[in-house]
Amino acid sequence: METIINEKSYACWLQYERIEDREWLENNKSRFQSIVVIGNSPILNSALNELNLGIRSMFDNEPTLYKKRVEEASIIIGIYDEIHNQFKELDTNRMEELNEESYIIKTIKNESLLLVGKSDKAVLYAVHHLLRLLQLREPIEHLDIVESPKNQLRMLNQWDNMDGSIERGYSGKSIFYENNRITKNLGRIKDYARFLSSVGINAISINNVNVWKLETKLITNEFLPDVANIADIFRSYGIKIFLSINFASPIEIGQLQTADPLDPDVIKWWKNKAEEIYNFIPDFGGFVVKADSEHRPGPFTYNRNHADGANLLANALKPYGGLVIWRCFVYNCLQDWRDRSTDRAKAAYDHFKPLDGEFLDNVILQVKNGPMDFQVREPVSPLFGALEKTNQMLEFQITQEYTGQQKDLCFLVPLWKEVLEYDTYAKGKGSKVKSIVDGSLFGFKYSGICAVSNIGDDENWTGHTLAQANLYGYGRLIWNPDLSSEAITEEWIRMTFGEDPFIIEQIKSMLLESWSIYENYTAPLGIGWMVNPGHHYGPNIDGYEYSVWGTYHFADRDGIGVDRSIDTGTGYANQYFSPNKEIYNSLDTCPDELLLFFHHVPYGHKLKTGVTVIQHIYDTHFKGVEQVDKLIKKWSTLKGKIDEARYSNVQERLILQLDNAKAWRDQINTYFYRKSGIADEKKRKIY
Amino acid sequence: METIINEKSYACWLQYERIEDREWLENNKSRFQSIVVIGNSPILNSALNELNLGIRSMFDNEPTLYKKRVEEASIIIGIYDEIHNQFKELDTNRMEELNEESYIIKTIKNESLLLVGKSDKAVLYAVHHLLRLLQLREPIEHLDIVESPKNQLRMLNQWDNMDGSIERGYSGKSIFYENNRITKNLGRIKDYARFLSSVGINAISINNVNVWKLETKLITNEFLPDVANIADIFRSYGIKIFLSINFASPIEIGQLQTADPLDPDVIKWWKNKAEEIYNFIPDFGGFVVKADSEHRPGPFTYNRNHADGANLLANALKPYGGLVIWRCFVYNCLQDWRDRSTDRAKAAYDHFKPLDGEFLDNVILQVKNGPMDFQVREPVSPLFGALEKTNQMLEFQITQEYTGQQKDLCFLVPLWKEVLEYDTYAKGKGSKVKSIVDGSLFGFKYSGICAVSNIGDDENWTGHTLAQANLYGYGRLIWNPDLSSEAITEEWIRMTFGEDPFIIEQIKSMLLESWSIYENYTAPLGIGWMVNPGHHYGPNIDGYEYSVWGTYHFADRDGIGVDRSIDTGTGYANQYFSPNKEIYNSLDTCPDELLLFFHHVPYGHKLKTGVTVIQHIYDTHFKGVEQVDKLIKKWSTLKGKIDEARYSNVQERLILQLDNAKAWRDQINTYFYRKSGIADEKKRKIY
Repeated sequence: METIINEKSYACWLQYERIEDREWLENNKSRFQSIVVIGNSPILNSALNELNLGIRSMFDNEPTLYKKRVEEASIIIGIYDEIHNQFKELDTNRMEELNEESYIIKTIKNESLLLVGKSDKAVLYAVHHLLRLLQLREPIEHLDIVESPKNQLRMLNQWDNMDGSIERGYSGKSIFYENNRITKNLGRIKDYARFLSSVGINAISINNVNVWKLETKLITNEFLPDVANIADIFRSYGIKIFLSINFASPIEIGQLQTADPLDPDVIKWWKNKAEEIYNFIPDFGGFVVKADSEHRPGPFTYNRNHADGANLLANALKPYGGLVIWRCFVYNCLQDWRDRSTDRAKAAYDHFKPLDGEFLDNVILQVKNGPMDFQVREPVSPLFGALEKTNQMLEFQITQEYTGQQKDLCFLVPLWKEVLEYDTYAKGKGSKVKSIVDGSLFGFKYSGICAVSNIGDDENWTGHTLAQANLYGYGRLIWNPDLSSEAITEEWIRMTFGEDPFIIEQIKSMLLESWSIYENYTAPLGIGWMVNPGHHYGPNIDGYEYSVWGTYHFADRDGIGVDRSIDTGTGYANQYFSPNKEIYNSLDTCPDELLLFFHHVPYGHKLKTGVTVIQHIYDTHFKGVEQVDKLIKKWSTLKGKIDEARYSNVQERLILQLDNAKAWRDQINTYFYRKSGIADEKKRKIY
Repeated sequence: METIINEKSYACWLQYERIEDREWLENNKSRFQSIVVIGNSPILNSALNELNLGIRSMFDNEPTLYKKRVEEASIIIGIYDEIHNQFKELDTNRMEELNEESYIIKTIKNESLLLVGKSDKAVLYAVHHLLRLLQLREPIEHLDIVESPKNQLRMLNQWDNMDGSIERGYSGKSIFYENNRITKNLGRIKDYARFLSSVGINAISINNVNVWKLETKLITNEFLPDVANIADIFRSYGIKIFLSINFASPIEIGQLQTADPLDPDVIKWWKNKAEEIYNFIPDFGGFVVKADSEHRPGPFTYNRNHADGANLLANALKPYGGLVIWRCFVYNCLQDWRDRSTDRAKAAYDHFKPLDGEFLDNVILQVKNGPMDFQVREPVSPLFGALEKTNQMLEFQITQEYTGQQKDLCFLVPLWKEVLEYDTYAKGKGSKVKSIVDGSLFGFKYSGICAVSNIGDDENWTGHTLAQANLYGYGRLIWNPDLSSEAITEEWIRMTFGEDPFIIEQIKSMLLESWSIYENYTAPLGIGWMVNPGHHYGPNIDGYEYSVWGTYHFADRDGIGVDRSIDTGTGYANQYFSPNKEIYNSLDTCPDELLLFFHHVPYGHKLKTGVTVIQHIYDTHFKGVEQVDKLIKKWSTLKGKIDEARYSNVQERLILQLDNAKAWRDQINTYFYRKSGIADEKKRKIY
């Protein structure tokens, strides 16, 4: 591992670069001379190893490890229950109010540093926090930090298949599977666990939500021993593993004739199956389920509903504390473009709202951030706030399926931040999405956030080096949604590229503008979907226009957009609470960036910016390409200032991005010019 | 083979149904009591076996086989040179004028039947001719037939890959390859050879023109022994085999650093390679080559031209009488839709016209019927007639890549007939395509017709039972392009479905209308290409509009079509001889069905029929669906009248065709209504 970790690409934000400031080193090295760990557990070992690695690497000095000489150690780490009697500096009242994942970092009187967690996992988080401070060269003389994660479940979904492919993966092959087996290369998985724990991820599902034939067998004793090995690795970094399961498992691997959730044999089969799994993995997290969606089997086959299906599994997992994460990505995927009465955007709400309260308390409904499918711009799903009595979690997509596939730069933290800060008005003003998914608004027993991972076996994990920022930023943001995009961005750059203010400034502006740039040159004004079918990269304006997927723009010679208003449209706007409902419903108040999602308007319709829809399309598409050009110029100023490997990786992808942006610009502009017949006011080249 | 041949689906047009007419049987059975074969060769054996099989099956009576008792036999078969001295009835002068594939069938004085060919292959054709007469219940009392094929090379191209897949195959897997080897199931290949010989096919290339890595090795001793086995089978049915080769073979399998056609090592390598191949297959036909086309390697890499490339191979094959068939399907496949100066339709002419006369005399240029790629409607390629000093053959596509993929009914003989009858005016009026490819107009040494096969390992060979008619019809038409579509159609139906006049009438009208029906509901007025990219089935109006393939319709809100006229367009029309040039060039004279291929016109442009372009689009698309509905009704009248297996096969596909036709109708109509804003005069439903 030593050799690998020296590769900056591979080491991501945990490079632990040697500290070159000699004065600082002289002043502070005494604080990192020795460590004592109170207690013993795999996670505490991970914490100690990480701390040791970080100090050794940054200070070029191996700290002494004491077993029990607390009074002599410069750093003391341990679990609160085992340690608080020895340190009167710990505020007992405050600590006891915190949750199991909370920690303090405190400089005590003899200048020793105390890292105390409510659990061993929390200790590991404290260690990562301290190492982050060191990497960021923050002052560490007088620390007094109390920190708790805001969200309970902080999860990643791997859409990995056992043949080594990754659905919507753009960073190489799976690090979990190869040749239809679980990989023997566990070292890489361990490093992944390190990265995830460093940003506070505490749960992971390790196989694709589309569970194919072979993957259905992951919950059999053919594969459970190997799954248990993976669970061991993640456990030592405080991460629980989940498996995506096939709802038809009782038939496919259980020899039953049915998978009916109310059938006694099926109920018994899942109970036995749960017992079997927990024999292998005592702290198994539970199941992720995509049922009755996009041709996956589910309870509908038996005239049962989603609650019947989810509760079946929840009952089986309950004795062991397991969870059922039931995805709400459910819609009619055999729509007819000729039938305008069906609206895919309405589907999740229509399916799940009537079932509110019918799910067991260890079921969590997993809801994508928008009603469609991770487009560059969508409204927030109206299911947030609509379910008051059902545990809920939010699903993001880190992998850039519709946002440039890690060829194009698209830093997604600002998008996620916008979603989390969105006010649903479910219980009046201030009912933000973040307070729903952190459980506070409705008092959910379980809740949180998950996201589809963007990593693969590329050396730099994420294909595009700058896409590492999405993984890092995701973890940091869901730990604390109150963090600003800017703060997260800067943190990541400094940990990844160092302290040069010029570098920081250049990359920061690239990242923070990138979502807007991508939006500029792709589908306009919230309409989405103008991509090539299947792989979803590159422009294809009518690619999904006559399809079965409910993904239309309805552009004709006069105008464009989907009327989802209440009186004349599909009524989707009605799924929101007031005043959002009214805001979206009215052409006067609907925000420009979502205009075409909610309304069909003439090309001459004036936006709030004063320009017409058609001129906005032309302007943003010319601008988007110019902006990518500027990204390239900006990046080129870093040549020689950062290592060649990462420099070229980004440069090559920016050039691909420019090609893509031009293809988008020209096809979008030509398409709408041909349709509208309205010339560009600025007389730029439209083909 | 006995059991298989009883299956009507498998037996195609060689079912040899028992003759049920007892009176006819009584009157004629004496004519089929005994056979004598003069001479001995594998092909004569095939002829005898086929004759024996046919008689036994139709008469339920095994004919006696004599070795030498010519005077007692009711049927005498043999080669002219070995037989003519014994029969003064043979007109020696006439026979000697005929070519090696000619034959006579003659009733001689004692009512014996003489089947005499100029070669053993011709004898086999004579046998098939006689069996066809019997199957068609034609009078056979006083036969006096002299028959010669009009075209020299009558060829099929198999686009089969060694993994068993078939490029553009819609009838199952390859019958030639499985699991990256040549199949061991040679029985099916033998049956295929029988079918082909029955319609006079005399050449076949047995691997895809796109020659991938493994297929490149077909000309190595790893596979040549198996190729030789296949050659043995085809040889015994008078069919020569060809292989498609990879122009880069000297590099890929020859350890050379170059494939430069003027490099001495490359020249030597191909000479040695030819020798090696002819050691295995002494009558090997030669090479089919797709070079410098759609990313296949070719002479351009070395700054050489097509003549350099073709002549390299021709020199190597010449000592053995082998041919090089060099495909002219060459164009820039990385076009930019933004650049209207490039016209794919012009490419083949532009590439090959300047090279006329530079090819060796054992090179044949293979030219697709149209300048694009087997669309439902294209003009005839202007290369026909343009090359006066270069052997040429015509390429058709039997497999229905763009014409319904054997889900939709599309009988292609009328299309091919139109091409063959097309007057190029190359040497004044009457310079028909058929007289170019039969070699007569310019006196080509080699020429002919080839086509991409439509067969696979489906039980009925062609997926759609009625698609058997395309294979049969192709063979019959290229044997004699003067045959009418109607005659060929009726022949095929009677051999395949029997003598019931009602059945014949129904199927005949279905077949003969099917091309026009397919054209009605797909891309209008010769514009082509409005298909889903990649697989090419189903509508996608803009599917190829912003692509690299040179396949555009340029529809905007005002009009549609590609301006290929001389003054304002790409000048493609100029590649034709007068008066075709002027006819296409002028809006007034350009035939309606090719209007949008040659001109960009407003939607309101009046066709010669008096209706506008937009109304024509609506009318034909509504009509097309109604016509498919009628096909279904027509076919349903045959229920119970033909065997259930073939009845259901066709019925199921007609239902798929109806779905497809509706999808086309609605997408085309909606697309153009949205663009033009012009309502249907008849106020039918447009979405």
